[in-house]
Amino acid sequence: MLVLGLDPGVATVGFGFVRADGTSRRAGEYGVISTPAKLALTRRLDTIYSDVTQLIAQFKPDAVSIEELYFGRNVTTGLNVAHARGVMLLAAFRSGVPAYQYAPNKVKNSVVGYGKASKCQVQEMVTRLLGLNEIPRPDDAADALAIALCHAQAASSLTFSGENI
Amino acid sequence: MLVLGLDPGVATVGFGFVRADGTSRRAGEYGVISTPAKLALTRRLDTIYSDVTQLIAQFKPDAVSIEELYFGRNVTTGLNVAHARGVMLLAAFRSGVPAYQYAPNKVKNSVVGYGKASKCQVQEMVTRLLGLNEIPRPDDAADALAIALCHAQAASSLTFSGENI
Repeated sequence: MLVLGLDPGVATVGFGFVRADGTSRRAGEYGVISTPAKLALTRRLDTIYSDVTQLIAQFKPDAVSIEELYFGRNVTTGLNVAHARGVMLLAAFRSGVPAYQYAPNKVKNSVVGYGKASKCQVQEMVTRLLGLNEIPRPDDAADALAIALCHAQAASSLTFSGENI
Repeated sequence: MLVLGLDPGVATVGFGFVRADGTSRRAGEYGVISTPAKLALTRRLDTIYSDVTQLIAQFKPDAVSIEELYFGRNVTTGLNVAHARGVMLLAAFRSGVPAYQYAPNKVKNSVVGYGKASKCQVQEMVTRLLGLNEIPRPDDAADALAIALCHAQAASSLTFSGENI
């Protein structure tokens, strides 16, 4: 099974593919989609939609795993991230790939075994679980791999607990 | 100039067309896009994206006018509305139509002349300004017409104050 993990954002969307075969987990392509702040919001949303659609067309994942949004203090930024997350979900749907969402603490719990794990702990476990030589950069790509790993774990569990959206 | 007003939502998206020629304002098609709560979010977003795209293709507006989001107490609902608003903006962009946004108090001020006008006051002024025989139903459609009127007023002003997004 190939999972595309997405870490939602407007300026930077992290993405990472994880292939799960039995208990084996391997990293595929990972990186970020970046959109310059000087562009209009509609154009940035279009870039995100187009790039996610293209990633799915190129690598043909079986599922998209995307983090649930947590609303911090900056509501304006949060709103735009939610706009962007909407077009990512649309890209998955229109590409025929089911989308699953996981709360941040669920991702941490799945990868580290502790829902309040630090960013560094998550990155180190992602590196170890995927057998990589170094921590994936940038951070958003490592986060996306963690989100993909989380779904790979959930989907291979006898008591599947992913939320199909 | 033909303006498509959009009142963002997930379960119900209000839409309304306003044609502005000089000082004349006439209503075109108006109504709502509805998505059943039992459907997955991704499917609901796809319905909204497809329907907005189709409305634009059919009536060929010169601009889309969309309300800015106000974040109330229900953050979960608000997030989903922001997801939906993201795909509406994407539909406008991919259809080649510029999108403008207005805060709720700006819409009220434009239509009624008072930023804290009640829903009823807005609906009565929409009915009067567009020369309609009765208040447009449902409420979301009347709201969408108000949002379209707001852009029609702003665009015809010597000191254009719309925010192109």
